[in-house]
Amino acid sequence: MSKSSESESGMAGLILKLSCADAHGIVARISNYIADFQGNLRELNQFSDQEQGKFFARFEIETENLAVPVEDFISNFNEIGDSLKAEWHFRELPYKMKTAILVTKTDHCLNELLAKAEIGELPIEITSIIANRSSCEHIAKRYDLPFHLIEMDGEAKEAGFLKIADILKAEEVELTVLARFMQILPEWMCQQLSGNIINIHHSFLPAFIGANPYRQAYARGVKLIGATCHYVTSDLDAGPIIEQEVARVQHHHTPQDLMRLGRNCERNALARGIRYHVQDRTIIDNNRAIVFEG
Amino acid sequence: MSKSSESESGMAGLILKLSCADAHGIVARISNYIADFQGNLRELNQFSDQEQGKFFARFEIETENLAVPVEDFISNFNEIGDSLKAEWHFRELPYKMKTAILVTKTDHCLNELLAKAEIGELPIEITSIIANRSSCEHIAKRYDLPFHLIEMDGEAKEAGFLKIADILKAEEVELTVLARFMQILPEWMCQQLSGNIINIHHSFLPAFIGANPYRQAYARGVKLIGATCHYVTSDLDAGPIIEQEVARVQHHHTPQDLMRLGRNCERNALARGIRYHVQDRTIIDNNRAIVFEG
Amino acid sequence: MSKSSESESGMAGLILKLSCADAHGIVARISNYIADFQGNLRELNQFSDQEQGKFFARFEIETENLAVPVEDFISNFNEIGDSLKAEWHFRELPYKMKTAILVTKTDHCLNELLAKAEIGELPIEITSIIANRSSCEHIAKRYDLPFHLIEMDGEAKEAGFLKIADILKAEEVELTVLARFMQILPEWMCQQLSGNIINIHHSFLPAFIGANPYRQAYARGVKLIGATCHYVTSDLDAGPIIEQEVARVQHHHTPQDLMRLGRNCERNALARGIRYHVQDRTIIDNNRAIVFEG
Amino acid sequence: MSKSSESESGMAGLILKLSCADAHGIVARISNYIADFQGNLRELNQFSDQEQGKFFARFEIETENLAVPVEDFISNFNEIGDSLKAEWHFRELPYKMKTAILVTKTDHCLNELLAKAEIGELPIEITSIIANRSSCEHIAKRYDLPFHLIEMDGEAKEAGFLKIADILKAEEVELTVLARFMQILPEWMCQQLSGNIINIHHSFLPAFIGANPYRQAYARGVKLIGATCHYVTSDLDAGPIIEQEVARVQHHHTPQDLMRLGRNCERNALARGIRYHVQDRTIIDNNRAIVFEG
Repeated sequence: MSKSSESESGMAGLILKLSCADAHGIVARISNYIADFQGNLRELNQFSDQEQGKFFARFEIETENLAVPVEDFISNFNEIGDSLKAEWHFRELPYKMKTAILVTKTDHCLNELLAKAEIGELPIEITSIIANRSSCEHIAKRYDLPFHLIEMDGEAKEAGFLKIADILKAEEVELTVLARFMQILPEWMCQQLSGNIINIHHSFLPAFIGANPYRQAYARGVKLIGATCHYVTSDLDAGPIIEQEVARVQHHHTPQDLMRLGRNCERNALARGIRYHVQDRTIIDNNRAIVFEG
Repeated sequence: MSKSSESESGMAGLILKLSCADAHGIVARISNYIADFQGNLRELNQFSDQEQGKFFARFEIETENLAVPVEDFISNFNEIGDSLKAEWHFRELPYKMKTAILVTKTDHCLNELLAKAEIGELPIEITSIIANRSSCEHIAKRYDLPFHLIEMDGEAKEAGFLKIADILKAEEVELTVLARFMQILPEWMCQQLSGNIINIHHSFLPAFIGANPYRQAYARGVKLIGATCHYVTSDLDAGPIIEQEVARVQHHHTPQDLMRLGRNCERNALARGIRYHVQDRTIIDNNRAIVFEG
Repeated sequence: MSKSSESESGMAGLILKLSCADAHGIVARISNYIADFQGNLRELNQFSDQEQGKFFARFEIETENLAVPVEDFISNFNEIGDSLKAEWHFRELPYKMKTAILVTKTDHCLNELLAKAEIGELPIEITSIIANRSSCEHIAKRYDLPFHLIEMDGEAKEAGFLKIADILKAEEVELTVLARFMQILPEWMCQQLSGNIINIHHSFLPAFIGANPYRQAYARGVKLIGATCHYVTSDLDAGPIIEQEVARVQHHHTPQDLMRLGRNCERNALARGIRYHVQDRTIIDNNRAIVFEG
Repeated sequence: MSKSSESESGMAGLILKLSCADAHGIVARISNYIADFQGNLRELNQFSDQEQGKFFARFEIETENLAVPVEDFISNFNEIGDSLKAEWHFRELPYKMKTAILVTKTDHCLNELLAKAEIGELPIEITSIIANRSSCEHIAKRYDLPFHLIEMDGEAKEAGFLKIADILKAEEVELTVLARFMQILPEWMCQQLSGNIINIHHSFLPAFIGANPYRQAYARGVKLIGATCHYVTSDLDAGPIIEQEVARVQHHHTPQDLMRLGRNCERNALARGIRYHVQDRTIIDNNRAIVFEG
């Protein structure tokens, strides 16, 4: 149902994401492997972290003229991957990632993801919207999407998270997005979804960690506000940063103005961050994210 | 010797900066006063802080056709100012503010201020360059400016600051600029120069307070680095923010790359911040700075 | 039904927009007038164009404690306005401007305006969506808005514009927005709606006037693409500019990538431009727009 | 004499820049070649232009452990290069490019290049400053550089350009920079220096081609001004764009304000553009420049 003509969602192909200890000739070995089977390199990104001696790369491969079936191409790669002691991952294109969106009250991030998914700019399939308030229910209806209202206040919180975990499992969700979901996740959930859960924080982290960042920004008198899209870890607001955006503000802007201006930063940083993740452009390296921007 | 044709440094006029408790009719009273004496309003900025009930304004007045001598215009204003229980300040234009620049090793902020002062973009008269390292001495020579090398290592520190204070006094310095001066000022000096001393910090505060902000930014994996121009207070890196600028960075940028990209943010934020101060576009309000950008 | 708590749409008040020949004491006279009737100045913006000798201003007035009925306050101002030979306009707040949105196929600008109107960020009441293609009909349904599909191909064009004019009249539309409406308006319509019709052009004007600006930008190899929100005049893509936004691009971006990145510029520039117009922050001065940003 | 610790100017290595018709396995062949001789890939950028079927790449190679002398590594590559029918170029690092700077009156671009060369941020060796006005002579003196004052008014123009060509030859200049040089070069000179001459134009091209772009921008009422760094061709202001930068402006900015704000765009775009050129990050492809940003 996507109307997009973008290469990411539309064209057949294969993405290989790989990281390992740095060494001579890694690019040569992998690009040889691709060329040997008549794969064509559509895009290549690599990064050698000199400080750590680590190698990271993303290969986007045209498979139309591949000399072997894609499955064989993937399975035969084990030999190289193993000998490099690498971590690697293949993704066949076109692909739409099954994504659940968690919200509380505000709808601007949710609207952003729905609109961009609809026109194919974000290659995701939204399985459902999960919320601890009913404010966004009408939006789920507009897009004909399941809306799960979960009671999470006070003592209902822990049971609420268990219900959410059940939904994610039942819907075979691959990516969980906290699109201004105002609840702190329990550690077990952070670990369970590790690497597959993304949050938008409404400040340019690491400034203004915690609650009410716009009020904090107003009180501090900063001239820039912002938003940060990051992977969720059990360490609050400290997970690997995928994307950030800022906007200029002036002394006359009230905290409400900052919220208005910040909404734009939030939705942009979140949508770009998700796009990078879904296109396998990110590699988590401890507390940082390698992001091969496209 | 300025070659500038900019209004700030070139045209006669008067700037009135004023703050007081908010009330009805303040703008009316002051603009009446100006009009009554045939002053013409070149630029007017006002801001009512609704939360605090405070009023702030800056009037830039053309005085060519003033009906009374400028001194009378200024002294007669006392009646209005007193009745408003305001704090206010007049500045006659053209004006060049006597400015001392303190540096340690790096020269990019210093070069920026020298070049912008020379073409009249910054209406300052640089009295001297004060340094605790000799790296910038050749630059002082180029511009024919006094260069004071002050020993500040170890036990010489306290005596060093006393020497600096003497120089500032002897040169009748009105504005002290810490242009990447890597020493923490003693509290007595912060208080003595309060409101007339500006620092450039090499991070987008309040993120990465303290030492080595680029190394901190690298370790945290942020996608934006920046710089903050602020008034110096005895609370380190926490004074009122005048200006900030950021630049995008990516995972492949080393801490040295961040330093390179950050230099541009630093010099821009510092030069703009000084310009706002020297043109009386800033009003300090507790921990924040009202900045009427021009 | 707005959920906004923003001052623009929520608080009672009055906006006065005025332009006239520059002279001494205009601000004084008007602010006196306001103060005399116990109005409080919430925001004041003024601009003296020295080259042309023209004065432009916007006064936002708190009317809660006004000493006279608002109508009297407005009508009594005639004396000042007439003596200044000014053009002026009062608007009572809160206000929602009746707005019709014209589209062709793409929906990102339309979605932007709908979402921002719904949360009160844009103080407009959308009367209907008018289109020459049916692609956006489902969006009108989602928001329960009238959708007028107008045949405009080939010979139907002139009749189509007459129908649109009828709709605008019937719905008492105050502002017409061309939100990626891919038809050139006839001169009579430009004149009829003059000053009340806004377009978004998908380039940073005056670069890439006319058709296919992203293709043009790609061919020229620019490193920045952008969008321009402007008042429509009969001179194609040459009306007064209200707002512009740009985004960085690189050699590897295809024309389709430029379209994707450009969509963000378009919706942002359009939404901000409309906000300025609806809040009476714009004054058209021949071929330019004075914009008192808020 | 550089104080820099940046990799570009400090570390030994080799840059290979190559373009050819696109085909399977090019990256594989070249990275094999590098790996076979124990070269290590420090950075790899490649781009396949699908529309044109062209391949472009830049390999930055660590040569410390190279198994053969660098000259052999370079000359042996002929076999691959020839069989690909490629155009290619090797550069040994560290390298400083001999650069002449041409100016007229304004000094901000000149100061930028001098300061960045001095701290090693720009790996260039400035051979001399060539000018048709004497305004910048004192700056040449400060940096102890030859200053050639060339008479170019009226009938002296053609002879002036011949003199400049002689100087460039005598000083073995590799890169000529027009740093706000306000003379149009003759076609023979554009051709002679083709690919090795860079200009900074003070508008965001293709808007405001020709003279007085800031005055044009003011008259048009744009909300963004900018600057464009491009290769010089005989087609005025139409050469391949290397870098662009813009700044926001408002209605109250005079043409002089635009010049002030524009100076920052100019020097930034120029310095970045030169850096890309000198680090062999640019490949000219007809009227466009591939730029592998670092």
